[in-house]
Amino acid sequence: MDYKKILKSIHREVKPILPEGRVFDVIPALASVPISKFGMAVKTVEGDEYFVGDAMESFSIQSISKVFTLILAMKHQGDGFWGRVGREASGNPFNSLVQLEYEHGIPRNPFINAGALVITDCVISEAIEAKSAILNFVKFLSGSQTLQYSFEVARSEKENGYRNAALANFMKSFGNIHNDIDELLDTYYHQCALFMSCLDLTRAFLPLANNGMPLNAKKAIITKSQTKKINSLMLTCGFYDAVGDFAYRVGLPGKSGVGGGIVAVIPNVLSVCVWSPGLDSHGNSLAGTKALELFTTKTGLSIF
Amino acid sequence: MDYKKILKSIHREVKPILPEGRVFDVIPALASVPISKFGMAVKTVEGDEYFVGDAMESFSIQSISKVFTLILAMKHQGDGFWGRVGREASGNPFNSLVQLEYEHGIPRNPFINAGALVITDCVISEAIEAKSAILNFVKFLSGSQTLQYSFEVARSEKENGYRNAALANFMKSFGNIHNDIDELLDTYYHQCALFMSCLDLTRAFLPLANNGMPLNAKKAIITKSQTKKINSLMLTCGFYDAVGDFAYRVGLPGKSGVGGGIVAVIPNVLSVCVWSPGLDSHGNSLAGTKALELFTTKTGLSIF
Amino acid sequence: MDYKKILKSIHREVKPILPEGRVFDVIPALASVPISKFGMAVKTVEGDEYFVGDAMESFSIQSISKVFTLILAMKHQGDGFWGRVGREASGNPFNSLVQLEYEHGIPRNPFINAGALVITDCVISEAIEAKSAILNFVKFLSGSQTLQYSFEVARSEKENGYRNAALANFMKSFGNIHNDIDELLDTYYHQCALFMSCLDLTRAFLPLANNGMPLNAKKAIITKSQTKKINSLMLTCGFYDAVGDFAYRVGLPGKSGVGGGIVAVIPNVLSVCVWSPGLDSHGNSLAGTKALELFTTKTGLSIF
Amino acid sequence: MDYKKILKSIHREVKPILPEGRVFDVIPALASVPISKFGMAVKTVEGDEYFVGDAMESFSIQSISKVFTLILAMKHQGDGFWGRVGREASGNPFNSLVQLEYEHGIPRNPFINAGALVITDCVISEAIEAKSAILNFVKFLSGSQTLQYSFEVARSEKENGYRNAALANFMKSFGNIHNDIDELLDTYYHQCALFMSCLDLTRAFLPLANNGMPLNAKKAIITKSQTKKINSLMLTCGFYDAVGDFAYRVGLPGKSGVGGGIVAVIPNVLSVCVWSPGLDSHGNSLAGTKALELFTTKTGLSIF
Repeated sequence: MDYKKILKSIHREVKPILPEGRVFDVIPALASVPISKFGMAVKTVEGDEYFVGDAMESFSIQSISKVFTLILAMKHQGDGFWGRVGREASGNPFNSLVQLEYEHGIPRNPFINAGALVITDCVISEAIEAKSAILNFVKFLSGSQTLQYSFEVARSEKENGYRNAALANFMKSFGNIHNDIDELLDTYYHQCALFMSCLDLTRAFLPLANNGMPLNAKKAIITKSQTKKINSLMLTCGFYDAVGDFAYRVGLPGKSGVGGGIVAVIPNVLSVCVWSPGLDSHGNSLAGTKALELFTTKTGLSIF
Repeated sequence: MDYKKILKSIHREVKPILPEGRVFDVIPALASVPISKFGMAVKTVEGDEYFVGDAMESFSIQSISKVFTLILAMKHQGDGFWGRVGREASGNPFNSLVQLEYEHGIPRNPFINAGALVITDCVISEAIEAKSAILNFVKFLSGSQTLQYSFEVARSEKENGYRNAALANFMKSFGNIHNDIDELLDTYYHQCALFMSCLDLTRAFLPLANNGMPLNAKKAIITKSQTKKINSLMLTCGFYDAVGDFAYRVGLPGKSGVGGGIVAVIPNVLSVCVWSPGLDSHGNSLAGTKALELFTTKTGLSIF
Repeated sequence: MDYKKILKSIHREVKPILPEGRVFDVIPALASVPISKFGMAVKTVEGDEYFVGDAMESFSIQSISKVFTLILAMKHQGDGFWGRVGREASGNPFNSLVQLEYEHGIPRNPFINAGALVITDCVISEAIEAKSAILNFVKFLSGSQTLQYSFEVARSEKENGYRNAALANFMKSFGNIHNDIDELLDTYYHQCALFMSCLDLTRAFLPLANNGMPLNAKKAIITKSQTKKINSLMLTCGFYDAVGDFAYRVGLPGKSGVGGGIVAVIPNVLSVCVWSPGLDSHGNSLAGTKALELFTTKTGLSIF
Repeated sequence: MDYKKILKSIHREVKPILPEGRVFDVIPALASVPISKFGMAVKTVEGDEYFVGDAMESFSIQSISKVFTLILAMKHQGDGFWGRVGREASGNPFNSLVQLEYEHGIPRNPFINAGALVITDCVISEAIEAKSAILNFVKFLSGSQTLQYSFEVARSEKENGYRNAALANFMKSFGNIHNDIDELLDTYYHQCALFMSCLDLTRAFLPLANNGMPLNAKKAIITKSQTKKINSLMLTCGFYDAVGDFAYRVGLPGKSGVGGGIVAVIPNVLSVCVWSPGLDSHGNSLAGTKALELFTTKTGLSIF
């Protein structure tokens, strides 16, 4: 498969629609990213890497970080936290409180904000210092020792984080948050404020395409079975309230963030990441979704 | 009307059902109130006072305080705050977040917790120091200079106040809270922690039975029209999600609190307060509601 | 009180806003009523009658009929049906199915469509022929032997009644409808299609202002206590999802219909009816509500 | 892969849990199926067939029929009906009306009852006689000319179908049902009352594992792209409100019915069907789900 050529043709095809999306402007520190940015990268399980455009430029990974904390929580607690968070699509926006009330403080899945807060709460309970633990784990996964949190973005998230504070306090009122709320929110805002490039992310996600094994590592970070479970969760819950639409159009397990990044995997084949900051009405990268749709069409790769 | 005799016979009749309620135990400082307590007081617009049982013993007024802050907000802003809070029954428990999400951060009415927080937010915006302003206003209304906040109850509310913190943060995310959240919650927890007796409360509510005029005062605290409006709000929204049931059985405008107090008024006739800490499943005093039902039956007084 | 003069001045004041409302056009047979129509009538417990404008012209009473069937059901079953229908404001539009699902087929109150269907179902269970029974009862109450159902309106309701059919089937799936659905809907569409004038309606509602006693009758149709209960239900549930607003502005128990009629009572004083077919966004007569607001202001009459 | 041996060992392992489920008893005609029944069948894209237990016994396919009508609608209208039905998981039980109200009569996806009714409505609009068209299509897919509707089950569905009648009327009130409601419900009850065996169903679903191609056929029934889309819909919406749980545990696209059947496909490999009438609390076959979980574990087959 000539991935290089395919990435180039995708880049060409999506250029005209880049301005159609809308840069996430709730967090001021993110609002200034140029909407013309576009990068895409592929890493195969054989270790080959291909990329195009701004694939080496770092961006705020936002909700993509929820996959990293989920892996961490699973490493520590196995299936131990499933009483505290479900694994069904929410059918509601990512920051909704409605179902949380009807379902007594148990979020629908680990990828809506409420569920991700529970998972980060698990990580805090297990780690000596959660922010360092998360950062070090992502450095290890991506093989990049220079990754950093953007303290400016984290501060900006905090200053505009009333909805997340509401979610955390609400779940705490049901007994479903175990640690201090300020520490929880601080950790959460930092994980969202991690900056990574498309290339970093394809490397960090490769184990999910490779039965839990990082390349050149001696042992898996999670079992083959856990890998399949995380992939199924990404497929059924990874795209806010557009899960079904993404599965219908793209058909790959993956995770998006409001920074404009989307990472996806084709089990036993490759990981792929695209970045374009213009979002659609569901909060997924508009051109990024289109790029992945073209990628599956052009390569013929699909899990279905 | 021989109110004294009526109060005595009510006292006798409700004694057997006092243990059927359940003392509010979410706030530890309130959980230790003996369920056998019962007090009832009446004050007529002619100035006569009648009482029975523990009518001179102070208790935590809790949500009854929402009427005092509503009057204060109305004095300052007239009808100016109705864009920030509705005046319809919520149909949901007093601390629900569901409608708040569907209705973009605008609470249904000033007597559910979310609406009361907005009203307290208005008071904070107008007063030099809101906690003093509220306390002084209630001292004036009741004519009792010894009224005090219970700092222990306020602290206990704060330590268990995650749901209220969720409500405040949620509304702030919609721009419907103007002041600092910590200041708002601190003020709110204090107003709920005011301690007053049945007698204090009949005095403080008398203006609502008297077209806005306190007894022996030279001028009304609010207009006749505003008085009617507050009474209508108490009738349609004053009893959590049991408004219709209370109106059906008792038929008087009033306000209850989880401390077990209920105050009601019969326009142009009297104010009446009952206290019994055992609550029914809606959070209203069980024996208190029964006592008021007996009161309207025995006196034949009703607004309908 | 010079009611004649007051009605005349109200008529003058509301004329300019008559065109602001919107005639109900879901049922074609109602869509053609001229928006310029306006009638108002008053009947005192002393038996005096006053009226202005189109007060003797018949219109489709629609939801006002729910009060008549409620009285009938109460006459037959006392408080026996309250396990099948609640008495709380719904907080939702009159034809909503949402709460019905959360609350297992028990409608919130007898004045939303679902609750009115349950009440009509009770009437069918008790009457030999429900449509005749309802018509005869309203003839008796109003003293008008010429009242008729409009078969054209009833047919039009049926042809556009998918929402009501959904409500009836939904409740039947919970076991909360006892009679045949087609018979239920046929009866319901006919009661809504009753045509009455303002004057007819003030006469028919007078017992609710007179402790259950029709004028010149030897015995009450319902007890004094039942009368108060129906009045409290009208105040807390009689105006769709604008109950609180109506109570705040008008402060009287009453019932509105999408035909543009509103009837209200002042206990021990009078019944009053206004008709103006232009509706506000809640389905209540826009000019009718204003007229009643003016009526309470000008007369100083209020229950609060 | 020794499928025969794998099926046998699964049969042995699930036997003890067969009595734990609960036979669907809402429809009397289904309530009498013995809970001890268990059948399982596999058909590979090479054409090989394997089966065990009661795999040749016919049962009521119920909601599995929704896949057949979806394929029919897609053959006729391509992507033309997506404005009338969504493709997101509902997060609610299969017969809920709540989201339908919030979302103006547009069901969440084609596999909840409301969505399936819309799809059947499309089939009725296209077919000369919908019931025959559906039956003939399934006969063709399964290669079995003896398939029949159970008129007894269809009648029983109708007699207990108030919820479905509510859904159909409700959507019609939004204009989202184009044909006569009685005809729609009759067709729908018949498609649910189709009787097929595990073996029939693996044959009928094989094209979904084979890029749209039936075995030995000259042309595909739907395109490769449409096949992937239907598979993605089955994965994200095929198991009522247990979609995520099924994907997490089993990881295959499929569809279940309250008759106790589940069909699933592994793209490019095989179709598999299991039948066990005892259901779990979500309405999916309890032992059937376990059997498929064992099947993916033992074969190592998965799409993730």
